[in-house]
Amino acid sequence: MSIESLEEALNHLFPETVQWRRHLHENPEPSFEEWNTRQFIADKLREFGYEEVEENVGGGGITAYLRGANYGPVIAFRADFDALRIEEETGLSFASRNPGVMHACGHDGHTATLLSVAKVLKAHEDKLSGSVKFIFQHAEEVLPGGGKAMVDAGVLEDVDAVYGLHLRSPLEYGTVSYCEGYAMAAPDFFSIEIQGKGGHAAHPSSTVDAVVVASFVVNQLQTIISRKKDPTQSGVLTFSTFKAGDGANNVIADKALLKGTVRTFDPDLRNLVEEKIKTMTESICEAHGATCKVTYTRGYPALFNHIEETQLISTLFEANRKDVNVEPIPLRMGGEDFAYFLQERPGSFFFVHSGNKEKGITYPHHHPKFDFDERAMLTGAKCFIDIVGHYLMDTSVVSSDSHHAVGE
Amino acid sequence: MSIESLEEALNHLFPETVQWRRHLHENPEPSFEEWNTRQFIADKLREFGYEEVEENVGGGGITAYLRGANYGPVIAFRADFDALRIEEETGLSFASRNPGVMHACGHDGHTATLLSVAKVLKAHEDKLSGSVKFIFQHAEEVLPGGGKAMVDAGVLEDVDAVYGLHLRSPLEYGTVSYCEGYAMAAPDFFSIEIQGKGGHAAHPSSTVDAVVVASFVVNQLQTIISRKKDPTQSGVLTFSTFKAGDGANNVIADKALLKGTVRTFDPDLRNLVEEKIKTMTESICEAHGATCKVTYTRGYPALFNHIEETQLISTLFEANRKDVNVEPIPLRMGGEDFAYFLQERPGSFFFVHSGNKEKGITYPHHHPKFDFDERAMLTGAKCFIDIVGHYLMDTSVVSSDSHHAVGE
Amino acid sequence: MSIESLEEALNHLFPETVQWRRHLHENPEPSFEEWNTRQFIADKLREFGYEEVEENVGGGGITAYLRGANYGPVIAFRADFDALRIEEETGLSFASRNPGVMHACGHDGHTATLLSVAKVLKAHEDKLSGSVKFIFQHAEEVLPGGGKAMVDAGVLEDVDAVYGLHLRSPLEYGTVSYCEGYAMAAPDFFSIEIQGKGGHAAHPSSTVDAVVVASFVVNQLQTIISRKKDPTQSGVLTFSTFKAGDGANNVIADKALLKGTVRTFDPDLRNLVEEKIKTMTESICEAHGATCKVTYTRGYPALFNHIEETQLISTLFEANRKDVNVEPIPLRMGGEDFAYFLQERPGSFFFVHSGNKEKGITYPHHHPKFDFDERAMLTGAKCFIDIVGHYLMDTSVVSSDSHHAVGE
Amino acid sequence: MSIESLEEALNHLFPETVQWRRHLHENPEPSFEEWNTRQFIADKLREFGYEEVEENVGGGGITAYLRGANYGPVIAFRADFDALRIEEETGLSFASRNPGVMHACGHDGHTATLLSVAKVLKAHEDKLSGSVKFIFQHAEEVLPGGGKAMVDAGVLEDVDAVYGLHLRSPLEYGTVSYCEGYAMAAPDFFSIEIQGKGGHAAHPSSTVDAVVVASFVVNQLQTIISRKKDPTQSGVLTFSTFKAGDGANNVIADKALLKGTVRTFDPDLRNLVEEKIKTMTESICEAHGATCKVTYTRGYPALFNHIEETQLISTLFEANRKDVNVEPIPLRMGGEDFAYFLQERPGSFFFVHSGNKEKGITYPHHHPKFDFDERAMLTGAKCFIDIVGHYLMDTSVVSSDSHHAVGE
Repeated sequence: MSIESLEEALNHLFPETVQWRRHLHENPEPSFEEWNTRQFIADKLREFGYEEVEENVGGGGITAYLRGANYGPVIAFRADFDALRIEEETGLSFASRNPGVMHACGHDGHTATLLSVAKVLKAHEDKLSGSVKFIFQHAEEVLPGGGKAMVDAGVLEDVDAVYGLHLRSPLEYGTVSYCEGYAMAAPDFFSIEIQGKGGHAAHPSSTVDAVVVASFVVNQLQTIISRKKDPTQSGVLTFSTFKAGDGANNVIADKALLKGTVRTFDPDLRNLVEEKIKTMTESICEAHGATCKVTYTRGYPALFNHIEETQLISTLFEANRKDVNVEPIPLRMGGEDFAYFLQERPGSFFFVHSGNKEKGITYPHHHPKFDFDERAMLTGAKCFIDIVGHYLMDTSVVSSDSHHAVGE
Repeated sequence: MSIESLEEALNHLFPETVQWRRHLHENPEPSFEEWNTRQFIADKLREFGYEEVEENVGGGGITAYLRGANYGPVIAFRADFDALRIEEETGLSFASRNPGVMHACGHDGHTATLLSVAKVLKAHEDKLSGSVKFIFQHAEEVLPGGGKAMVDAGVLEDVDAVYGLHLRSPLEYGTVSYCEGYAMAAPDFFSIEIQGKGGHAAHPSSTVDAVVVASFVVNQLQTIISRKKDPTQSGVLTFSTFKAGDGANNVIADKALLKGTVRTFDPDLRNLVEEKIKTMTESICEAHGATCKVTYTRGYPALFNHIEETQLISTLFEANRKDVNVEPIPLRMGGEDFAYFLQERPGSFFFVHSGNKEKGITYPHHHPKFDFDERAMLTGAKCFIDIVGHYLMDTSVVSSDSHHAVGE
Repeated sequence: MSIESLEEALNHLFPETVQWRRHLHENPEPSFEEWNTRQFIADKLREFGYEEVEENVGGGGITAYLRGANYGPVIAFRADFDALRIEEETGLSFASRNPGVMHACGHDGHTATLLSVAKVLKAHEDKLSGSVKFIFQHAEEVLPGGGKAMVDAGVLEDVDAVYGLHLRSPLEYGTVSYCEGYAMAAPDFFSIEIQGKGGHAAHPSSTVDAVVVASFVVNQLQTIISRKKDPTQSGVLTFSTFKAGDGANNVIADKALLKGTVRTFDPDLRNLVEEKIKTMTESICEAHGATCKVTYTRGYPALFNHIEETQLISTLFEANRKDVNVEPIPLRMGGEDFAYFLQERPGSFFFVHSGNKEKGITYPHHHPKFDFDERAMLTGAKCFIDIVGHYLMDTSVVSSDSHHAVGE
Repeated sequence: MSIESLEEALNHLFPETVQWRRHLHENPEPSFEEWNTRQFIADKLREFGYEEVEENVGGGGITAYLRGANYGPVIAFRADFDALRIEEETGLSFASRNPGVMHACGHDGHTATLLSVAKVLKAHEDKLSGSVKFIFQHAEEVLPGGGKAMVDAGVLEDVDAVYGLHLRSPLEYGTVSYCEGYAMAAPDFFSIEIQGKGGHAAHPSSTVDAVVVASFVVNQLQTIISRKKDPTQSGVLTFSTFKAGDGANNVIADKALLKGTVRTFDPDLRNLVEEKIKTMTESICEAHGATCKVTYTRGYPALFNHIEETQLISTLFEANRKDVNVEPIPLRMGGEDFAYFLQERPGSFFFVHSGNKEKGITYPHHHPKFDFDERAMLTGAKCFIDIVGHYLMDTSVVSSDSHHAVGE
């Protein structure tokens, strides 16, 4: 058995992979409500011959084991399968039949890709030294996410290294990219309720004008980024919502609501921003005679791609994936709960570009017209095979040093 | 005939005056829709014996003439009669029967007061030298107001001087107050629509953040009052509403809406504030890469009480109204379309305090629990009689110099 | 003796009055250092025949009594005589011989004017009923001022009413003006030292940037005027100085100094502004991790012209000063320590316009090219005579009621 | 000849190296005025036996060639030698004898280090394959810097790769660090002169308050960093100086001066920040009725360490420098005109930590008490030898692939 033969098998399987993806796309289910999706995945895995299929892992995830004939490391591959509460506007023949719900982030593709890997590898189980654990995760899109629950349920306890991928539109198909170290941000959320004192618009002196106070909060909290953050670190603080007053011209608003998000990588910076949002807002409100309630909700942690494992996959992909570019990319401010897996075990999360300008596949993730070039699933599956090749087969392009490092 | 005998007549009439007021209160009609109210007033006037009752003056006003037996000046008294779109919460036995509409500003009292004056004077028509023109005005509360329409219709063309009053709760009953010169503000209104460029909250650099831009507008326009207004002038600029974002944490708002009001007295300051709101907002938006649409709507002009006429009534009231205090008061930031009358003819607008703590009459105007001490109507009516006494009778406490000044 | 005969005497004396003024102008002395000026005044008064000349009153002031032959009220007239630390640039033949010191506010004129009144009245002492107390005050320009010290020394104890005047350039000569009630502001001063934490300009995260913090203080304290002050009240808050950084580009400033002034009339507003400057600055600094020291120094109180006495002089001037306009003027934001005199006794402070466009007398007070039309001294002197006429002679145009009110 | 033997030679030379450094430290000369320093360097080089010593290269730099016996690459080493206009406060026995001038950045150490390398290598010239070009650069501290002038003069034309180092206090001695890609920022400078309209502090309405306007500039330009910069990029904008008003409390400042610095790496971001500073300031000034003059001066470009050469030296140092740690470090916001050399040829700029807490060597660069642990010079010299070993000797730990890459 060689990488090439597995690639060939994936090529043959590709039409079916596409069918699976389209079935999933046509039947999207929102986070934490993916009942039919789970059934579909579990059915497929059992259909492929998997016996150790565990359902409801961490609430709604599925795992399945591929046991190699010989002793070797256990590597895990993860795909997420939840959809978003977005009304699809793609006009695709296989567009969502579930009103208001859509696979607008490509998780349908992630799942179909990993299913294709599972099917192809199953036929060669006896030639592998080690095991592959397939992790199908629910609820990536909505806090607290399924990832943490699956990790907490011990899904990685017997695993040596863990990998995952994300399709990336509208970046043009033809490239696989990786990012050493911090790759995706910790996305936190906050709301600030400012309580002033209302009154008639003509008599401000007896009021505490919540519009004015909240404006000063917006302005001054800019300095958390411009002055309090180390300029060599990445971080964002956005006020997404400002609501005060009910539309009347004659009334000074007694309340203002600010909502927003914070994106950071460094945990110390994350702590600093949270603390500064609270203490600065309180002091500014005090300056103006108002009070406030600041609620800060932490999202996923920042996703940190382990250096060694990331260098490993970049080397593997460069060696094997001759039909695509393999490139480093800078970190991104989006969040991803695969971060929890990488806090637990070494591994890396990589990206398969999936845009296609000619076909009009140019919309960003979470857009009602989001789509991806389905060839990216085949490329992604082959990347997983490259990783299998390194850990469980005798075909690695990387020296045994790296190999042995796993699981230490 | 003496002032005292007219006062006595008003005292006797008072129970009926109260009935009128309560009838009006029970049957409030919103501005520009006062069909039954007008009918009630016109019916009463004709019932009192008035022959020259003109309806639909300036769209919805009513006028009536009292013609004295001898030649003399023509003075006008004005009362307004529209109600507000407020759901009454007073619990009064004569509370509004018209859901969502309420006499919450005391116009019912103004009208009942002036009706009582009309009835009492009618009986003494033959002893007066000159005429009284009674002006019952519709739609004071809503732009463009009935006052301007009545003035434009020529209601003051044959008038030498014009007077009006406003009840004032919760200031405690027992005082009549006046204000020389500017007494009530020009209330203008504005809205500012700021157009930025939306995007994902994690990627501000490709956006123009409307929340941030609008906050800077709020902050900097404070300087119109703090730096651009002459500190010896009065003026207010209030942002009553700030709306941006739809509540999502992840999206940078592309639009922000600011609404507010401006209150000024001096016409030059009014022009300045309007111009600065426009030009400053435009430049601030430009600084941040946003655009804006500023809509500025002028309300009534500032109400200017003529000096001589105001000194006249303060002297008259001090001399005659022994049971109440007569006091000067500072100008107020509220608006009043009696301003249009005083732009056309000399005159003054005075205030009869009508709160009553003991009876729980402590709510401000436009409050769902607003009420007034009905004795204030009697006091107000007697003040009108004082004015009649000066202009049309031989009883004035003020020298003939002032007298002759009128109508020159 | 009549007003007219005293006017005539002043006319004859005018060339000498001008000489005095020019002598004083040529020999200006700064506040609290007016040694020769005092000597000059005292010498003149004794030369005129005054026996009761008291020097060093309240530290540096001079008083002199004119005792009428008959019993009557005691009225006081006050003139100030200190100069400013300004380098004169008028080019006048009688320009300052004292480098860096200049009569740039017209106090030379005030003093010469009052001397002329003193000389003229002395010759008619026997025809007056009552007394005139001449008060020549040192140090009006510099806190704590000579006025308070003279009042504290009891200078008004035997006085029934007190009057003073100020020349006003560049308002064109030909008008005398008055202002009822609050006429000049309470001028307070403050300094704010903000202590942040310095550092290299490239590494803000370890610093507290004093420039940024102080900027936020400047911006937010605008709302004391725009939101916290009742819009019907007058008030100013100005930051006159902002200093941070020593000019280097590479250093984050650890300190910022703000200085400024506050002008108010209402004592409650004055208290409010002082308190808000302190508490808001402290909270804003706390928001940013800085500390501050706020020093607030109260200047003179607001000058309040008593209503009755102001109406009196407006009536007197209107009746007698046929060659000039007599006009009311709005209050002014400048300060004046005559306020202390008017806190102690009834009286009024009036203004004699002294600009002259044709002669190029168009510069504001405290300007190095400040000058005044010397005819204003003659007008001012005659105004004082009008007041004497009312209180101490039988010539008043005002009824005895007002007369008797004095000294009650 | 081996690396070890050259290390040994450097060890023997170390006392002399220290002497050179102390001589330079005692005789500092400011940028562009390093007359004696140059002479000292040139004399030493000739004393060591160098014949091809060129002076006044690019205005004030010096170069010298070491020609190996055999053909091979030409590598260049650069040291800078100018001092700063700082008054030394170290109290060292060899403290500056030149008042107001001090080697407060360690350039004395850089120069002594490179001289030691030059001396030691000279003795082994015949065993090298290739050449070493020693570049001693003047005027690193002051724009436009000597680096650009030397590069423009063609100093790198015959060079294949170029390296330099910087001592780094107060980071503790014992580590050598490197940074792939952008390592030091482009430091730009700006000044903003805001022209408002002055006036009396009590009358803001006729003025344009420069303090207020400049404060709004400071606040709003924070958003260039917080909103306009891509959060994954590094950038700083610091206002180091804010001057307005001359200290008087009574005057509204007509002018404000802002000075500051910008630090960026990405050239597009650099352009963006420059443009935004100009356009935003102009629009903000326009909003307030002020005008401005913005002067933006570009400093050195960002220093970009070539990836391959940086990986090379990290590998070399890790292999050879057993007594110190070799570590990657994040990029820094400081600037360095070695950037020009790296724009012209491949190479890298590395850091030798030189603090020493025990000896009190804890002050940052440019501090009057700055010093460094002199052992860092020996470590730095050995690092240069490692590079020579790779390129010109048969001792490299790195495969020939990298070797051959040079000079292609």
